[in-house]
Amino acid sequence: MSGERILLAHGGGGELTDNLIREVILSGLGEAAGGSLEDAAVFPAKGSVAFTTDSYVVNPLFFPGGDLGRLAVCGTVNDLAMRGARPLALSLAFIIEEGFLFDDLRRVVESVRQAALEAGVKILTGDTKVVERGSADGLFVNTAGVGEVVAPREITLCGVRPGDEIIVSGPLGNHAISVLAQREGLSFETVVESDVAPLWDMVEALMGAVGDDLHALNDPTRGGLAASLNTLSAASGAAIEIEEGAVPVEPAVAFAAEMLGLDVLSLANEGKFVAAVAAGTSDRAISVISDGEKGAHCAVIGRARKGAGVSSRTPGGGKRIVEMPYGEDAPRIC
Amino acid sequence: MSGERILLAHGGGGELTDNLIREVILSGLGEAAGGSLEDAAVFPAKGSVAFTTDSYVVNPLFFPGGDLGRLAVCGTVNDLAMRGARPLALSLAFIIEEGFLFDDLRRVVESVRQAALEAGVKILTGDTKVVERGSADGLFVNTAGVGEVVAPREITLCGVRPGDEIIVSGPLGNHAISVLAQREGLSFETVVESDVAPLWDMVEALMGAVGDDLHALNDPTRGGLAASLNTLSAASGAAIEIEEGAVPVEPAVAFAAEMLGLDVLSLANEGKFVAAVAAGTSDRAISVISDGEKGAHCAVIGRARKGAGVSSRTPGGGKRIVEMPYGEDAPRIC
Repeated sequence: MSGERILLAHGGGGELTDNLIREVILSGLGEAAGGSLEDAAVFPAKGSVAFTTDSYVVNPLFFPGGDLGRLAVCGTVNDLAMRGARPLALSLAFIIEEGFLFDDLRRVVESVRQAALEAGVKILTGDTKVVERGSADGLFVNTAGVGEVVAPREITLCGVRPGDEIIVSGPLGNHAISVLAQREGLSFETVVESDVAPLWDMVEALMGAVGDDLHALNDPTRGGLAASLNTLSAASGAAIEIEEGAVPVEPAVAFAAEMLGLDVLSLANEGKFVAAVAAGTSDRAISVISDGEKGAHCAVIGRARKGAGVSSRTPGGGKRIVEMPYGEDAPRIC
Repeated sequence: MSGERILLAHGGGGELTDNLIREVILSGLGEAAGGSLEDAAVFPAKGSVAFTTDSYVVNPLFFPGGDLGRLAVCGTVNDLAMRGARPLALSLAFIIEEGFLFDDLRRVVESVRQAALEAGVKILTGDTKVVERGSADGLFVNTAGVGEVVAPREITLCGVRPGDEIIVSGPLGNHAISVLAQREGLSFETVVESDVAPLWDMVEALMGAVGDDLHALNDPTRGGLAASLNTLSAASGAAIEIEEGAVPVEPAVAFAAEMLGLDVLSLANEGKFVAAVAAGTSDRAISVISDGEKGAHCAVIGRARKGAGVSSRTPGGGKRIVEMPYGEDAPRIC
């Protein structure tokens, strides 16, 4: 029924909760839901499993190129992919503000369904809580994920070695600009769409192409490329130097970032990865990454060296330090 | 520093987020945290794994006998235990309202640490988000859990068979009354403490004592025993009949429930289970459950029969239907 809203009692654990779970969530997830209605799902596993979680509090819930539901699936399967793990199972936990529209919940669940099918993962378990009006902002989602590590050698943040080439899988900043523009009601000539997408297929292809020469992976989400590179550099004990002119950015994103006074290097992405590959293997890497639509504009952006910290060579030949962002730029971006 | 509060920028994914995670969360968890700072943790698994999640939005955060942190560990490891799974790994995801006190966060993290050690589980991965003042109510926590299924035969909600004896592991209603009394500022002569506790040790002992004769397990959390029995009955296709006088309830809980106009059978518990065991095995079951402090007042409360639905025989000899609660009684109890 259009206009129908969530009640506090939908979170009480009784008949209304059961109805909500069966009629909206499980039936909306359809073939993307696996298993039973038990509180815990059981499935077979062997070898190394990867395990991760993220809560998603993006505001607004719907933005060009995606929404909270798509984000909650992609963000978590991408954290698994960054460890070389094929996603096996997701959990899906909603915290809903009393009065939230059923129709909006159905839209989010439909996005979860589509993204889960795209990512090749099943939703195996979940939870639904409702809080009073004013005690949450619409809808928060948490997903946790379990994956099967298929990387031949463990992929960690610590794997960058001096000499490695640094690759990004595509243009940066789209997710943050899409969400910020929607939130602030800004319209630019070109609508910037979020890049939110599952990355496992690209990572799998990359591992197939370069094998053990894939030294490290990270997804530049909150804090963007700047946070990602600083994290890799600090964890690995290596310096990273990028060519600022080599970092792919769509003109509309560059323009919007300029207007908003934001550094593209600190903007969140939800469908990109940074990879460190052994010297001499970046051609093979770029070749397989650019094979797919999501990696069409991937690029080698720099190189790791002995030392510490992250720096960027500007097109004019200067050099600047790329700092770890402090954190205040863009709240509730994911 | 006392009085220090969380800022929006603590959720930005930059330096402030890093500091919060290292200085408050990881250092507070101490030996209960495992692994690295990667977004996803990797650990070995074999055989069947159980996977579950719950978000915790209890109000107030601190109540007699427990708090949000203890609840978030116990609730999730207990969902694993109900599938016969030894808890292996937990995730821990915070959604924090801007302005929340660091000292309260530290208290919650300390409770997570203690409960995780008590439950024998490590926190392997996590996430921290911050939302603006007024966009959440203090602190919400999500935990997901992975466990190793050690039950000889899969334990499901569907396993109740006619003739089975129904056991509860201790007195009911303490958790709900503890939280409601604290929230409403009610004081009774006896302070009712929440029963929030990890159940795996008791479940393991029970499995050791009765083996395959353990047919079904469920924890009577939201919706209480009434929801639990109705869920088991519907999933298994069996009727369940209990003796109302046999259900253990502490006098202070019975009194408070009466005062508040609540049915003890619908009150949430966070450290109790309901078990269906084969006819003739309840003595052995009761013997091992009552061995530990947490199970000291366990009891056989009834029996499964052919048919459908849940009913209760009153001390006076009457019979009433125990309905699935609708859901409106006690919001934000967990």
